[in-house]
This record gives sequence, C-alpha cells and structure tokens, in this order.
Amino acid sequence: MVHFFLLTSQGHARRGQVRLRHSCLETPAFMPVGTIGAVKTMEPRDLERLDTRIILGNTFHLMLRPGLDVIEEHGGLHKFIGWNRSILTDSGGFQVFSLAKLRKIEDRGVTFRSPVDGAKIFMGPEESIQVQRVLDSDIAMVFDDCTPYPATRDETEASMLRSIDWAERSKQAFEGSENALFGIIQGGMYEDLRNLSLDRLTQIGFDGYAIGGLSVGEPKDEMNSILRFIAPRMPDATPRYLMGVGTPQDIVHGVACGIDMFDCVLPTRNARNGWLFTSTGAIKIRNSRYRKDTRPLDEHCNCPCCKNFSRAYLRHLYQINEPLYARLATLHNIEFYLDLMKRIRISIENQTFDELCRAYDVPLP
Amino acid sequence: MVHFFLLTSQGHARRGQVRLRHSCLETPAFMPVGTIGAVKTMEPRDLERLDTRIILGNTFHLMLRPGLDVIEEHGGLHKFIGWNRSILTDSGGFQVFSLAKLRKIEDRGVTFRSPVDGAKIFMGPEESIQVQRVLDSDIAMVFDDCTPYPATRDETEASMLRSIDWAERSKQAFEGSENALFGIIQGGMYEDLRNLSLDRLTQIGFDGYAIGGLSVGEPKDEMNSILRFIAPRMPDATPRYLMGVGTPQDIVHGVACGIDMFDCVLPTRNARNGWLFTSTGAIKIRNSRYRKDTRPLDEHCNCPCCKNFSRAYLRHLYQINEPLYARLATLHNIEFYLDLMKRIRISIENQTFDELCRAYDVPLP
Repeated sequence: MVHFFLLTSQGHARRGQVRLRHSCLETPAFMPVGTIGAVKTMEPRDLERLDTRIILGNTFHLMLRPGLDVIEEHGGLHKFIGWNRSILTDSGGFQVFSLAKLRKIEDRGVTFRSPVDGAKIFMGPEESIQVQRVLDSDIAMVFDDCTPYPATRDETEASMLRSIDWAERSKQAFEGSENALFGIIQGGMYEDLRNLSLDRLTQIGFDGYAIGGLSVGEPKDEMNSILRFIAPRMPDATPRYLMGVGTPQDIVHGVACGIDMFDCVLPTRNARNGWLFTSTGAIKIRNSRYRKDTRPLDEHCNCPCCKNFSRAYLRHLYQINEPLYARLATLHNIEFYLDLMKRIRISIENQTFDELCRAYDVPLP
Repeated sequence: MVHFFLLTSQGHARRGQVRLRHSCLETPAFMPVGTIGAVKTMEPRDLERLDTRIILGNTFHLMLRPGLDVIEEHGGLHKFIGWNRSILTDSGGFQVFSLAKLRKIEDRGVTFRSPVDGAKIFMGPEESIQVQRVLDSDIAMVFDDCTPYPATRDETEASMLRSIDWAERSKQAFEGSENALFGIIQGGMYEDLRNLSLDRLTQIGFDGYAIGGLSVGEPKDEMNSILRFIAPRMPDATPRYLMGVGTPQDIVHGVACGIDMFDCVLPTRNARNGWLFTSTGAIKIRNSRYRKDTRPLDEHCNCPCCKNFSRAYLRHLYQINEPLYARLATLHNIEFYLDLMKRIRISIENQTFDELCRAYDVPLP
C-alpha cells in the first residue's frame, strides 16, 4: 500500500507526501542508491542523520550476492542491512539487460548467466516479484523489458507490449502483499507508444507509476522532450517516479514536469571520483589549488564533512587513497542532493519554484 | 608537559593517569594508529564515541604527504585532522630506517630518498623535533637510530650510543615547548646495553620513557625477556610506553611488567584483512560458516557494529569489497582493544590482575 497526499502545486510541480510502510517521504524526494545492500561507505545511522527517508536496492545484485536465502534468514532486506526506513527495489530487469551475459529473452522471461559465478539463472515477472517479496521492499517495481537506445518504432513497440504483459503478470504475482507496486512506462522515444504504455498500465492499476527507459544514452533534448510529454499525463493521485535521473538540473526539470521521486548514482559515484557538488559549483578535489585551502567544501553546507574538515584535508585523504575520503565525500554529496530537494519543496510551498527553475536554466513547461 | 599520577598497583602492574594538553589518559592505555592523518576509515567523532583519548601519527608519512606546510597552514595536526584529543607522534626514525631508500647514516642524521617522489631529504634530531613541534603533538618522541635484528653487541652498542647523542640533541631542540618529549630506550637484545641506555636517558631527563627496538622480528621469548628485564627498572614517576606492541596477550604481559602505554596497527590492520577479535576468540569473517549467521560478531560487545549488524552482513560486505566493511570492522576491533584496556584497569583497581594474567596465559614476573 501507498498513500499519496498532494499538499500544494505550482504549474506541474507537485509538493506532496508518500506514506509507505516504514517511512513518510516528503516529495519531491531523492533516493540514494544502495546497490548491493549498502549505500557505499554509509551506515544506516549516517543516512538517518542526513534525514534520508528511502534508499534504493538492486534486486539483481542482491539475488547474486549475498543470495536470497541469506536475506530471507534475516527476515528481509531492512533487517539484513539494519535500515528501518523505506526501501525501493528495482525489478532486476535493467541489470539483466545491461550486465548479464548470454541472455535469452522469451515471453516467459529471461535466461542469463550470473556475472559472479557463471550460473544459469532464469528470471521472469513471477521470479522478480517473488524475490522482491522476500526482500520485503516498501516499493517493488514490475519486471520490464528494457528497450535499448536507439531502437526502431517496431522494436520499441514489441518491447513495450512485452513489458505490459510482464507488468500484468507482476501485479498478479504481487497479490496479497502489504507493500506497494509501481508500473513502469516504456515506449522509447515515441510519444504515442509512451502514451499507449501509460494507458495500458493505468488500466491494470498500480500504486504508482515510473518512467523507465530514459537516461539510457539518448541526447538530453530527446529525454527532456519525452519527459515533458509524458510526465504531466501520469495519474494525479499516485506518485510519479523518474528512474535513474540525474543531475541537479535534470531533477529541477523533472519536478517542473510533475515528477515526485528520483534516484541516481550520480551524487555517490561522483563523490568517490573526487567530484563534489557545492552551492557555488562543482569542486574537483584532486586539483592542486586546494592543497592548502583551509576552507570547508561549502560554507553553506551543514554536513559533518563541511562542519569538521577543510578542503586541504579532503584533498590529502583523496591523494593517499584513504577510505575515509569516500565516506566524507559521500556524506557531503548526499546532503547536497537532499538539500536541493528541500529547497525545491520549499519553493513550491512558497510558489517561487519558477525562480528556482530560472536559476537552474530550466524552461518552465 | 605531562603529569603522571599513579592511582594503584598490583605487583609491577600500574593503574594511573597521564594528563596531557588535550586529554587525560587512563592507563594502561592503548593508542590506535593514524599513520597519515587518519585512523583508517575512522572519523574523529567515531573515535571519540569509542572513548579513544589519544591516537598516534607518523611524522615521516605526514612530512611527505600532505607536507608540513599544509599542516602548518591549519595550525597543527589536531586542527588539520579535526581531532581535539591527544596525539603522540613518532620521530620518523623507525620509518626512515625501514621504508626510505638510499639511506646515508651519519652522526648528524640520515639522508634518504622520499618513497613518494624520490626527493632527497635530510633528517636529524633537530629536523624531527622541528617537524613534531609544527605538528604540535601532545607527546613527541626523540629521533633515534633503530638497531636492526639481529645485530652484534658492538653494532648494538654503537647504535644505542648514537641514539643517546640524538636524544640529547632532541631534548635541546624541544626546549620551550608546552608539550611532552619521551626518550626511547634502545640496546637490542643485550640487557646491559638496555640498562646503560636507560641510565643515560634518565640523566638527560624526559617526560616519559619508551622501549624501542622490540617487536622488530626477534623471537617472542627474546622480546619478553628484555621487556621483563627493563620495564620494572624504568622510572616510577613518569609514563612507560612500549612501542608497536602488540597482541592482547602481549599487552597483558606488558602491563604485568609495568608498562602504561601501547600502540599497534594490529587491531586496525587485522580488521581490514577480515580478522576480528571477539570475547570467544578470533573470527575470520570470510569463512563460509558465517554466510547465514544472523548473530552479532560478539554478543558482549557494545560497538555500533555489534549493536546493528549480523556476521552474515559483515561477511557479505567483505565479499563485495564494500568500503563500509572496513569501517565497521575497524570500529569493532578498536572497541575490543579499548575494552581490553578497561578490563585491565579495573582488574588492577580490584587487585584481580593476576587472574586476568592467568586467563591470557601470561606468567607473572
């Protein structure tokens, strides 16, 4: 189950709440990615202190390692990883298509080889949902066929229709669960196919709807064009989730189109690579200009990294490959994203979101 | 300056307090090693929560990276690394002898090549103390000549006498500092040379005395024999520090001989390598027997790792090379060592230290 409350809106932008089994999300919300049972370098209590309400887990990776039996033994993913707030899991579809080897795709599902040990694995909608039920995610995602980019109209339509069939079977397999199940809109770069996908999914009926198949290699204006087309057409009464997006500008743009939820590896991955977001622009911490810089990363930031350490210290930790670097950088970049979401929410409440869009060079739809 | 208060004793074992500029140590005390400006994976607040009072920094490593000018710009090592409690720095002597290339050893000091960038560096007693003064360590160590093992009596005597000369020059260079300077007893495996070294050092006069040149490759019974000989002869009124030692058993043995302070990389390095100390023996976390083990590492441990996570989760993090593993394991092993020291202190207060020695198979001297 999921309860969505729309508190206020400005244009398409929505300020709401998503009440889940383990926590209440203030939307628009950002979900840090904890691929294999941990947001890299973070303890759950660290994420709680930043007021993270929900994290993402990857079904595909967790199924391979530690294996579903291990998580089942603990009574679900929350207990296994020591996180008492909400979890959204993807269906594994995207990873099966992007990471697994020797795939064989049929209507009943996909057969592939494990990239960890080469074992032959079959996964269809029933299997994916069964795994997500054991994980006990607050929000499960339907198993979908991920249309590659580029793809012809015929390829895209066939793939989208298979995803609809799998969405229907996913819903049946989810019957009786206390958690929420989201449908995923496919249809590539074709507006009419996106529309058809949305129609068919709303006929089946889900607790929320996601836009899949964007940010998969297409030019940014194609992505934005599809987003501007489909997001405002999504049901008003349920949460809208844009999968795998994106930069701060992308997120502001998504909100302007009516999106409520986002996830992306960008803040956490960039942190580890030395790319730090600040209120005055990005900092590449390896740069020698920071060698003796005693200032915090961002004077306006309240994260434990900015409160306690200098740019010079962070650069030093980065240079010597000290694991503490990745931790401090991750704390900071997550705080930056969560703070961005907070500023977005406040601006919608104050009806000043259009100003924020201008500051991020985002056209109002 | 340093103030040492002997609270109580049992046999040679001493229960005391060492008051330093930034904190008061309850002794016997263990000092985690933060080689290059961080106890690997740990934030200062993590160490504070474990009630760590003092950490060790390595002069040699810090001088090479980030470089003394960077630390000076921050106003010392405490401010650079964000740690408000005490710091002990070694003199760099041990590293110059064990890590640097192309050494040229003369009476005035040692010329060597930086292992980081090949630059030619000279370090003598005056240079080492000057660096440690800029670091502003609560406890600085004299620059010493590290006698290798094995060494003949003549070699050992010459090396020890050079160390005495350097100790005298170190003290002169330290003149006027508000911090404490410890002398280092050398003399290899020769009791009379150890005794002579101690005599000469106490004639010069230091704020505390350390035993150097043990745990450098010699058989354990040789180490214990020298320790049992020299430790009880060290001055009563000042702290006694056994450098680079050791296992829990070694520490109990050191305390039994009258040692107050210890440092060792063992708990932190072993943590990263998957070796975890528990009240019921060591756990090698990679072992498949822990794959589905939902119990904490150690039921009697109060560290954040044991309070929140299962052995199976730790093993999973270890198997996927997740940086969070090293952090949780380090938290646990440091807590184990600090808890060992607490149990030692309480047992001396209660005059039951002899029972603790028996439990660790340590002969009473």
